[in-house]
Amino acid sequence: MKLPGQEDFEHSSAHENVLAEGLDSGLGPGPSLGGPSDTDSGESEVSKDPLLFVQLNELLGWPQALEWRETGRWVLFEEKLEVGAGRWSAPHVPTLALPSLQKLRSLLAEGIVLLDCRAQSLLELVEQVISEESLSPELRGQLQALLLQRPQHHIQTPGIRPCRGSNAFRNASRDEDTPLKHWNPLRQKLPQGAEAAAVLAGELGFLAQPLGAFVRLQNPVVLEPLTEVILPSRFFCLLLGPPTQGRSYHEMGRAAAVVLSDPQFQRAVRRASNIHDLLAALDAFLQEVTTLPPGRWDRTARIPPPKCLPSQHKRYLGLCSERSEPQEVTGFTSGKVTQAEDRNHHGQHTPSPELQRTGRLFGGLVQDVRRKACWYPSDFLDALHPQCFSAVLYIYLATVTNAITFGGLLGDATEGAQGVLESFLGTAVAGAAFCLMAGQPLTILSSTGPVLVFERLLFSFSRDHSLDYLPFRLWVGVWVAIFCLVLVATEASLLVRYFTRFTEEGFCALISLIFIYDAVGKMLNLIRAYPIQRPGSPAYGCFCQYPGPGGNASEWTSTKHKDTDVLSVHLGLVNASLLSPPECIQQGGYPSGPSCHTVPDIAFFSLLLFFTSFFCAMALKHVKNSRLFPSVVRKVFSDFSSILAILLGCGLDALLGLATPKLLVPTEFKPTLPGRGWLVSPFGANPWWLSVAAALPALLLSILIFMDQQITAVILNRAEYKLQKGAGFHLDLFCVAVLMLLTSALGLPWYVSATVISLAHMDSLRRESKAFVPGEAPHFLGIREQRLTGLVVFILTGASIFLAPVLKFIPMPVLYGIFLYMGVSALSSIQFMKRVQLLLMPTKHQPDMLLLRHVPLSRVHLFTAIQIACLALLWVIKSTPAAIIFPLMLLGLVGVRKALEWVFSPQELLWLDELMPEEEKNMPEKGLQPDHLFSRSDNEDSELMYQPKSPEINISVN
Amino acid sequence: MKLPGQEDFEHSSAHENVLAEGLDSGLGPGPSLGGPSDTDSGESEVSKDPLLFVQLNELLGWPQALEWRETGRWVLFEEKLEVGAGRWSAPHVPTLALPSLQKLRSLLAEGIVLLDCRAQSLLELVEQVISEESLSPELRGQLQALLLQRPQHHIQTPGIRPCRGSNAFRNASRDEDTPLKHWNPLRQKLPQGAEAAAVLAGELGFLAQPLGAFVRLQNPVVLEPLTEVILPSRFFCLLLGPPTQGRSYHEMGRAAAVVLSDPQFQRAVRRASNIHDLLAALDAFLQEVTTLPPGRWDRTARIPPPKCLPSQHKRYLGLCSERSEPQEVTGFTSGKVTQAEDRNHHGQHTPSPELQRTGRLFGGLVQDVRRKACWYPSDFLDALHPQCFSAVLYIYLATVTNAITFGGLLGDATEGAQGVLESFLGTAVAGAAFCLMAGQPLTILSSTGPVLVFERLLFSFSRDHSLDYLPFRLWVGVWVAIFCLVLVATEASLLVRYFTRFTEEGFCALISLIFIYDAVGKMLNLIRAYPIQRPGSPAYGCFCQYPGPGGNASEWTSTKHKDTDVLSVHLGLVNASLLSPPECIQQGGYPSGPSCHTVPDIAFFSLLLFFTSFFCAMALKHVKNSRLFPSVVRKVFSDFSSILAILLGCGLDALLGLATPKLLVPTEFKPTLPGRGWLVSPFGANPWWLSVAAALPALLLSILIFMDQQITAVILNRAEYKLQKGAGFHLDLFCVAVLMLLTSALGLPWYVSATVISLAHMDSLRRESKAFVPGEAPHFLGIREQRLTGLVVFILTGASIFLAPVLKFIPMPVLYGIFLYMGVSALSSIQFMKRVQLLLMPTKHQPDMLLLRHVPLSRVHLFTAIQIACLALLWVIKSTPAAIIFPLMLLGLVGVRKALEWVFSPQELLWLDELMPEEEKNMPEKGLQPDHLFSRSDNEDSELMYQPKSPEINISVN
Repeated sequence: MKLPGQEDFEHSSAHENVLAEGLDSGLGPGPSLGGPSDTDSGESEVSKDPLLFVQLNELLGWPQALEWRETGRWVLFEEKLEVGAGRWSAPHVPTLALPSLQKLRSLLAEGIVLLDCRAQSLLELVEQVISEESLSPELRGQLQALLLQRPQHHIQTPGIRPCRGSNAFRNASRDEDTPLKHWNPLRQKLPQGAEAAAVLAGELGFLAQPLGAFVRLQNPVVLEPLTEVILPSRFFCLLLGPPTQGRSYHEMGRAAAVVLSDPQFQRAVRRASNIHDLLAALDAFLQEVTTLPPGRWDRTARIPPPKCLPSQHKRYLGLCSERSEPQEVTGFTSGKVTQAEDRNHHGQHTPSPELQRTGRLFGGLVQDVRRKACWYPSDFLDALHPQCFSAVLYIYLATVTNAITFGGLLGDATEGAQGVLESFLGTAVAGAAFCLMAGQPLTILSSTGPVLVFERLLFSFSRDHSLDYLPFRLWVGVWVAIFCLVLVATEASLLVRYFTRFTEEGFCALISLIFIYDAVGKMLNLIRAYPIQRPGSPAYGCFCQYPGPGGNASEWTSTKHKDTDVLSVHLGLVNASLLSPPECIQQGGYPSGPSCHTVPDIAFFSLLLFFTSFFCAMALKHVKNSRLFPSVVRKVFSDFSSILAILLGCGLDALLGLATPKLLVPTEFKPTLPGRGWLVSPFGANPWWLSVAAALPALLLSILIFMDQQITAVILNRAEYKLQKGAGFHLDLFCVAVLMLLTSALGLPWYVSATVISLAHMDSLRRESKAFVPGEAPHFLGIREQRLTGLVVFILTGASIFLAPVLKFIPMPVLYGIFLYMGVSALSSIQFMKRVQLLLMPTKHQPDMLLLRHVPLSRVHLFTAIQIACLALLWVIKSTPAAIIFPLMLLGLVGVRKALEWVFSPQELLWLDELMPEEEKNMPEKGLQPDHLFSRSDNEDSELMYQPKSPEINISVN
Repeated sequence: MKLPGQEDFEHSSAHENVLAEGLDSGLGPGPSLGGPSDTDSGESEVSKDPLLFVQLNELLGWPQALEWRETGRWVLFEEKLEVGAGRWSAPHVPTLALPSLQKLRSLLAEGIVLLDCRAQSLLELVEQVISEESLSPELRGQLQALLLQRPQHHIQTPGIRPCRGSNAFRNASRDEDTPLKHWNPLRQKLPQGAEAAAVLAGELGFLAQPLGAFVRLQNPVVLEPLTEVILPSRFFCLLLGPPTQGRSYHEMGRAAAVVLSDPQFQRAVRRASNIHDLLAALDAFLQEVTTLPPGRWDRTARIPPPKCLPSQHKRYLGLCSERSEPQEVTGFTSGKVTQAEDRNHHGQHTPSPELQRTGRLFGGLVQDVRRKACWYPSDFLDALHPQCFSAVLYIYLATVTNAITFGGLLGDATEGAQGVLESFLGTAVAGAAFCLMAGQPLTILSSTGPVLVFERLLFSFSRDHSLDYLPFRLWVGVWVAIFCLVLVATEASLLVRYFTRFTEEGFCALISLIFIYDAVGKMLNLIRAYPIQRPGSPAYGCFCQYPGPGGNASEWTSTKHKDTDVLSVHLGLVNASLLSPPECIQQGGYPSGPSCHTVPDIAFFSLLLFFTSFFCAMALKHVKNSRLFPSVVRKVFSDFSSILAILLGCGLDALLGLATPKLLVPTEFKPTLPGRGWLVSPFGANPWWLSVAAALPALLLSILIFMDQQITAVILNRAEYKLQKGAGFHLDLFCVAVLMLLTSALGLPWYVSATVISLAHMDSLRRESKAFVPGEAPHFLGIREQRLTGLVVFILTGASIFLAPVLKFIPMPVLYGIFLYMGVSALSSIQFMKRVQLLLMPTKHQPDMLLLRHVPLSRVHLFTAIQIACLALLWVIKSTPAAIIFPLMLLGLVGVRKALEWVFSPQELLWLDELMPEEEKNMPEKGLQPDHLFSRSDNEDSELMYQPKSPEINISVN
């Protein structure tokens, strides 16, 4: 059965695939050449050729002990054998001298070129090559023997433990046909169908003149001892000559290998039919090389592999048009490609087909349901992969950490109305329901910063006006659900395109700042609650008083001491001791004195815990960028930084056993707030009209939830994640609305999609090519889109409610530290902060940011200053009694952004922010005026354009 | 009057200069081309040509509004005009496409080449060029008008404040002859005598065929509006053609500019006598370019300037020999250069002429005195430079910080025998005396780590054996002075060459570890002294008791409470209050109770101060590497990190006003130890034979002082500092011996040369070329060698004794934090730690260290493991009662290093450590065996070799 609208969807999905893959092949993070997954339309012609492994064997030891030795290898980049150290160098961009390329060309031009050799073995190959050459029979024999000699390969065994490093390398070829050869770790990294090319170069005393040969085998065969990896060889290149020219044959051999490792050259030479095609391919290579001037660059310096390789597609187009068409068209073609890529890559919101207006009431929702319905079975079947287990573990721990932190803080802020238990329960129920129903099941629902901030404001509002909080909150929830349904019905999600980076950054920065401010504020409150006893401090001392025989409590008099302004107690006939207050009570006495309720050391120890957990979480997060430890270990440290920091804090606290304030956890399974049932009564002590008046705060919260939910959804559904099953903006919002009702009725926290943890979820489900060659980053293939991992995570979270007895050992300062960490890391993730740093940075030291190449610094600073001013205004509003209207002000950012069009040119806004829908319409007509005038096709930004775009917005602060 | 031996010295000094400059020109940190100071012998032929500023003016706006616009400029590197942003790009290595170079060549080959044009102005020049061309008169006129048109220059004003960034750039040429032109900041950076070259390129509709012209002016003249900087122009290059070929004229213009900015090409073209010479120079350039394969490198990526440029000298040699001599000799020549450079650069101790044996008793000392005597007047005159004022301020603050820290710790360790006051006095007296007398007056004398550690051990030894410490110490000092004199007499300083990096690192690592251990230990002791009150803590409460009417102190009974094991005081008829102990005493009462002497909060607050000062000092030190703030501000933060951290700690402490333990400072000018005079009595309470027995510890201390002093001296006198006045190893040791006597007699701390602060002193007196062009690092010229800055610093330090009343506000935990910082930063500065990190680093992530290219990883790990084992052994010895013999064990490291010759090949030791004198003798004969066999002249390490060598040894931990 074919559902109506499915065609549309399929069409658009296919379209998206092409877009996404085109993007990846040209500009995406991984180089697209030769990978097993490269079968998309745009690239197919360029890259369907198998990957080529090129090896250089050099003839060394002339004249005493001639031997072939592997001295270099190439797949994408060059690896040089470090003879002294007995290891492969790090992969690097090969650098050549021009003369070696020229000498190679002339040697091949005069040498033997066999383009469809049918040899079945090395012997046959060598015989064929030698027979072409006019040599004396004696020389012929010598040469043949030499060429058949087994070369020395350097094979590095995988996973070298430093402690037994001395066994790290062996020359596998010394012992004939050792099984070691099959363990070559490089073999595992090369994709199926890879072919080899062998370059043999060296100097030979008995040769009178140079001998060059280039062979393409019609059917690739394994030329057994030639290459280190057992692969069928396609090409064979022989460069020998008399020993007069220094290391020039070494350099020529390298040149041949480098040329062979070039995909365009490979493509051409695989299709070459004669020597002229071969030389033409070499000339085409030469036309395209980048040259660096000798006085400014040392050729021996090793350039690490660039983050992204140049687009082969672009090169191919450029080459074709350059040859077949007049020059002007070339410029036009490549210019068009560049511009299209620029736009494609720069536009933050590529308008996805899910965001097309249907024009019908609930039309978007219906389409979302239809689209997702057909994937529903596969949403469970696709989860059957071991990777999903580790994803569940990771996301479960992150979710629990979130639930603890947010629960602890929300409980703290709402005086137990939403405590840790509610947080666990709510997370489990809402999260699991969302995973089962939502349009984008990879989303992880969580309490997020904006909602937390709003709830805190709502609570203090209701306390200030003596309202019964939970019933009031219930009505707010009901109204929010209604408003959200209206938004779903009217397809308001389409407005998401008006939330440009300017709005997102304002949103994120405000919430982050509130987090930071609150974390520090809570710490200061805690210190105030446990005052520090200074030397001259008036509050000092504490008795334990027993109602002993003849003693009378009334005899204790508290008088204001005249001189010292100190409460001094004059003792009569009483029994008293210096027991500590708890023991005093135990002994039947009662503690008395000004400092009976002060607990020393707590303040500073809490401060230590606060800083420890904050710095520990920060440091662990950055372990990822360290060089130490294998990447798996680093990833664990980095991924679990929050939970590790919490554990460390708890350990320190437990070790010293001080009475620091701890997380409030109910001892049994009942709501944290004493005396309420699980179901919130609809009115409580509130007047009936409050249920109507609640619509006002609900409107504000709806704005907040809409912004938070939809911005996250847009980020998650970005094209670079190559999602196959499409998005469901309307369905997601609908689910959020339904869950709003449920959580309000049960008095649980409110939930929306959380950016960071959802991205972490997606990241843990990445499918990547396993075969990646030295110097290449793994190739991103897609994401395991399914509903099961999320579901299991939330079921586990629900089961973790029984962890409650353990949770009460978590000291609050540790949670404040994590809270601070969340704020700081969210704040530092946005581009706005980079621009703020630019304000303090001398021009000379500024990084080479794309926007600095295109927008005058003064305009960049103006833009930043406007953002700062907006933030300051938001902060002022947040500090007044009108704080609760801050969501409206956040929405006001969209208006400010619109007004910026009068201040900045579209060109500048394109670089500083991104374009709003109307502006996008205007752009192509206007063209890029100033740049266009002076540098017609300014495509010199390519490298920066290629840089993989990380999810830079951390909007939800969670 | 010529002193005997002066010839020798002058000879050796000149020799050293050549060595030093040769080193710098080829391998030193700064590129050596064209700088004003490059007049040394080796480079003179290559680089006496003036520096060339190359500017590319492009013809834009065809056909509507033709105008010339500067779009790029080159001195060493390329700066591109970012049209959109209106700023110069960061300097980067220019990249070219090969075709643009080839097109340039053919255009020049067919174009006009005027090699000794006598034009006096742009008009004459243009007329001469146009007259050579066969054009119609009309075209000629048009062309001439066009060429005389004033180009648009982009001039960035210096020191842009971000806040008024909108005025940051102006087009100076819009208003005719504005004075702005004279403010061009680039002009200030170009050296005197710099010349300009103008490249004019563009597409012109009315041209039928390309028009190329290359002009060399016989006498450079200012071609007024052509170049942005008003410089006499030497070259003029015109590349025009019909507008058919995309941006190819832009690329050809860039190619011409890049070629012109190459020093070898400049050299050749300045001497060219005809077009063939010009083309030959271009061909030579092409022969030398580095090429990057198109599929692996994006030409538009901008490569930042490398740390060091390739040696022009080497290029020149290579070029000469390649042309004039057979190939094999080429290899030999360049090989020899490389090898010599390698050796020169790798050897840590270039044997300086001061370390030649004279063979006479005190021969070295006599020679030192003679050598320094003739410089004595200049040692004061050379100080007359403003730079010396800032050096004095910086070093004074560092010295005072050192005096406080070491004084505080030494006083702490020796129970006041050497307190802060002694530290100030001793530093002032010893430092000033040393500056007046020493062989190397740039040295700053200080208490250093090793001596501090030894003194602490000596003190605990004398306490354990109930000796009178100061008299005992006096005799140790006397014996040390005697032993040092013997070492001076026998020219033992020559043995310093046996202290290889292995020994230095062992020395430094041990002392650093002791520092770290002690800092943490002292903090723990402090915490133990201020116990933390836990909830169940037995010691609780404190009364204030008054001997009131009817009260009797004897009525207070302390009984052991049976049940609670708590001291409980049963009160009778007494007056008592809860006043704090100090107030109680003030009121005439006395505090009574178990916790009267515990002060709460101090332990954790001290811990906070400790961490704050440590992390603050660490963070401030690293501010230097930040991009934020102008470099001056960063330098201040970094240079004054310790003092700022101490100030911060003091501020925090003063703010809270807690009774943290403070630095012990006497209230008046008298020794810290109560009841001793300034002069130490020779025997005190000790038996007479102790003065003889003191020779034993003195022997150990002599070893320590010799090692510490001489290793520092070797580091300070390294060739890369280009010292003109020579070293004085023997004289320095003699001075140390004399000061040893003095300080022992007065009971002041002992002093030797301190590496870090002396290097900082030298660094603050660096002379650098002021003219450095974009992308170039300032050129190191030498150091202001004089005695005055040191002298003033120590006079100021002496005057600072009056600071004593302020010093007593410094909390001890802050000093412990600084102590920890010193240990950690000294430890992390040695290569040993980098190798320890290698143990934990997967092979893939290891940095491209030179030694990893040449030594198998397993051997590197073995070497590191041996070092760790030696350290462990030293640590064990240090922990036993025999700790005091640790200097002997440090000396034992030299033996271990000698024994390593049986384990490692000289080749490996050359990379892992450095060679001992005997090994160096053997090396050249043996040759670099393994590498040599397989890669005859493996000079592919150049880039890493070029890396500027920073003083990596921090041996004195101060």
